[in-house]
Amino acid sequence: MTAEEEEQTEDREERSDWYVRTVLDAELADYTPVRGCIAIRPYGYAIWENIQGQVDRELKATGHKNAYFPVFIPMSFLAKEAQHVEGFAPELAVVTHGGGQKLTEELAVRPTSETIIYDMYRKWIKSYRDLPMLINQWGDAVRWEMRTRPFLRGMEFLWQEGHTAHATFEEADAEARLILDIYIKFIEQQLAIPVRVGRKSEREKFAGAAITYTVESLMRDGRALQMGTSHNLGQNFGKAFDVRFLDKDGEQKWPWSTSWAVSFRLIGALVLVHGDEKGLILPPRVAPVQIIIVPIWRKEEERVRVEAFVGEILAELLRAGLRVEVDRRDTVTPGFKFNDWELKGVPLRLEIGPRDMAANQVTVARRDTREKSAVPADGLAPHLVERLEAVQTNLFQRASDFTERNTHEVSSMDELAAELEQHPGFFWVNWCGADECEDAFAALKASIRAIPLDDERRQPSGPCVSCGRTAESRVLVAKSY
Amino acid sequence: MTAEEEEQTEDREERSDWYVRTVLDAELADYTPVRGCIAIRPYGYAIWENIQGQVDRELKATGHKNAYFPVFIPMSFLAKEAQHVEGFAPELAVVTHGGGQKLTEELAVRPTSETIIYDMYRKWIKSYRDLPMLINQWGDAVRWEMRTRPFLRGMEFLWQEGHTAHATFEEADAEARLILDIYIKFIEQQLAIPVRVGRKSEREKFAGAAITYTVESLMRDGRALQMGTSHNLGQNFGKAFDVRFLDKDGEQKWPWSTSWAVSFRLIGALVLVHGDEKGLILPPRVAPVQIIIVPIWRKEEERVRVEAFVGEILAELLRAGLRVEVDRRDTVTPGFKFNDWELKGVPLRLEIGPRDMAANQVTVARRDTREKSAVPADGLAPHLVERLEAVQTNLFQRASDFTERNTHEVSSMDELAAELEQHPGFFWVNWCGADECEDAFAALKASIRAIPLDDERRQPSGPCVSCGRTAESRVLVAKSY
Repeated sequence: MTAEEEEQTEDREERSDWYVRTVLDAELADYTPVRGCIAIRPYGYAIWENIQGQVDRELKATGHKNAYFPVFIPMSFLAKEAQHVEGFAPELAVVTHGGGQKLTEELAVRPTSETIIYDMYRKWIKSYRDLPMLINQWGDAVRWEMRTRPFLRGMEFLWQEGHTAHATFEEADAEARLILDIYIKFIEQQLAIPVRVGRKSEREKFAGAAITYTVESLMRDGRALQMGTSHNLGQNFGKAFDVRFLDKDGEQKWPWSTSWAVSFRLIGALVLVHGDEKGLILPPRVAPVQIIIVPIWRKEEERVRVEAFVGEILAELLRAGLRVEVDRRDTVTPGFKFNDWELKGVPLRLEIGPRDMAANQVTVARRDTREKSAVPADGLAPHLVERLEAVQTNLFQRASDFTERNTHEVSSMDELAAELEQHPGFFWVNWCGADECEDAFAALKASIRAIPLDDERRQPSGPCVSCGRTAESRVLVAKSY
Repeated sequence: MTAEEEEQTEDREERSDWYVRTVLDAELADYTPVRGCIAIRPYGYAIWENIQGQVDRELKATGHKNAYFPVFIPMSFLAKEAQHVEGFAPELAVVTHGGGQKLTEELAVRPTSETIIYDMYRKWIKSYRDLPMLINQWGDAVRWEMRTRPFLRGMEFLWQEGHTAHATFEEADAEARLILDIYIKFIEQQLAIPVRVGRKSEREKFAGAAITYTVESLMRDGRALQMGTSHNLGQNFGKAFDVRFLDKDGEQKWPWSTSWAVSFRLIGALVLVHGDEKGLILPPRVAPVQIIIVPIWRKEEERVRVEAFVGEILAELLRAGLRVEVDRRDTVTPGFKFNDWELKGVPLRLEIGPRDMAANQVTVARRDTREKSAVPADGLAPHLVERLEAVQTNLFQRASDFTERNTHEVSSMDELAAELEQHPGFFWVNWCGADECEDAFAALKASIRAIPLDDERRQPSGPCVSCGRTAESRVLVAKSY
């Protein structure tokens, strides 16, 4: 290992430590004695609830309904779809005993629910009138990952998994694309994280899918994170589970289907994209606490007056629908509180002391820019609503600029290798479509993150960066989590 | 078996079939190939979402926060609390293999989460300032039940489990009672199900609890259902997991704790308490669809006009915040739709045809009383809001009357035995507190459902119904699910 490589490694470890330390210190989650399973603490779970609420609303608005399927899947079910079992068999947690008895058929804890759901769809889908079947599930899933990291890769993770069935390929593909758009909109507008969109290569696609659409974002350490995927499953699961419907034309057909998911990994993305050396920076639209009020006083007489002033302001902000809290702890100093809420990434902090009160104003500190300014107490709520929007916009802009700055076109494997080491980010490369050339990226510990959906973006600008043959498409390559 | 007994048995089986048939036909849930695990279909899950939303709001309003702990619990953890392991060991689903390897320590799928949560509380609770710790979790749990029935007793069930820690016994007990009150209020006011409240006997209490408080309701077949429980856990788990906090007085102490839960069993209770031979009857406050509109027409020309009229009414009702749907299916008759929505227990049905339109009215059918009446289209929304309230009130009144009528005092075991066979219900009996006498109830396939909290209610009215010795308290006995 060269000195440079060592430095890189250290840098990466530090970054990784920064991530884990931030997750733990901000009380998003904690390690548990069960390897790879985290405990999501109330502050982290509140972010998840905000994510859930918003994604759920979009899914319902587009006709999806929630349902719930068993946590256990008979091992034989997983084997019914050939690619699926190949993909998931090595990662299963297996229940062999129940109620003190050895089971006649072992049960996998769901790594994903396609198989058990399609077994039910066989009973529920009989006619074209039963289609489209638009079902979503919120729950957990378990994959026996070797290397885990809180939120980003866990043995157990929380997610939503949607499973839909349609009468035609076109309808299924339109559904997969509709969900992709819902994910893009949610991630960009609510999480303030810019995305790159495309489909996965044959190698990278979901085990059992015809097409996997993906949403990818660049983390501040230059690595890509898969934010969500939406799969056109073709008729693979319909056939494997012999789901058939009587179509309008009187023919028995297999339905075309999709599945799609986002998980609590999005919380990890919030940390990695927006965070800084002081801790989290949460976009106001998903922050559990948008505004923290820190009352400041020295003497008891001041305390009483400041409390009354703070009480009025709190009431006004709550009436305006803002998520606001007052930190009334009397065992720590204001300075400690400032650091604590900066670590927790609360977008705006109001400092209110006797001097502010005398001037009928409050001091507003922005977490993203760390600017402080005095704001009149009159008309405070609309002012803070605007300022929260400004934080939201700035976070997205900052992350967009970062992504732009760290997206480069490279024209040789040497260049790709050097860039990946020195300035990791997204790299546009021309690719011939061959497995061997995908192997060449893998040898650099990188992978094809997305093949653009847009014809123009996909248009190769030269020969395959690896073999020099005619390129099939321009693709986005990066190291990834 | 006598003829009477046979008839009783048949009756019970029929009732049981009625229950299962209703659950399946109303599309609340379906059996899956995994024994004891159901699939909750969208209509059933929508009821669960309404239950969740309302209970969650109450829990948050009283300072509780949601969090999430691992689905897996190391087997050694369950053994740390002696009563707890004795209670749960026979019911565990055990993961022995993960990622293709035999595990060095086997993992139980959580039957309840006290043990893993107290292991985390040891890290999180260090000082009196960390108390009270008020955490709730929404998720699933698994118990290897031999006899299962959809929603009522499942191998996997959905629930919320609250886990709190406090500085004193009194605070913990107040918390357990606060939650009990939240459950009572929710079950009576939202589910329209009257309850009987009390604590469990030593035998019936939760494995590891000091006191188990319980909410019990009488189903229409005369059997009791445990609707929810709230446990004062004493210091049992604090000690077992060595959770210690530095109290204000400078002493290291074990916290006092509680746990409490309601599950999707409440959906089963809705079926069993309110349902009739036509299917479900859902209380408006938790009904996914409160009002179903069935447009009626013969000719195409009528259809167009009726649709326009229906559209206006739908818009008005949605604006009023009502959960309303229009059944526009053109492949089934109005009569089929009537039956279908009665089976699904929708509280109000609006029938709207050309004649209604001509008279500027709609026909409103109540699911609970099956009365039909014409209602002017002007001012329809407030009228329907009132009528929904009337349905809610009537359902509660009906169930209260039923519970009253089927609650009797008995003064001998013979009388108890005869009543339990002929007119099952709640029975007030005087009990000495001895195990043998509790055995005598068990021999009648009944059990002590609740020991009243109220001194007056608990006051014995005579000697122990079983042994004739001095009674300790009056208790409520019933057969149960």
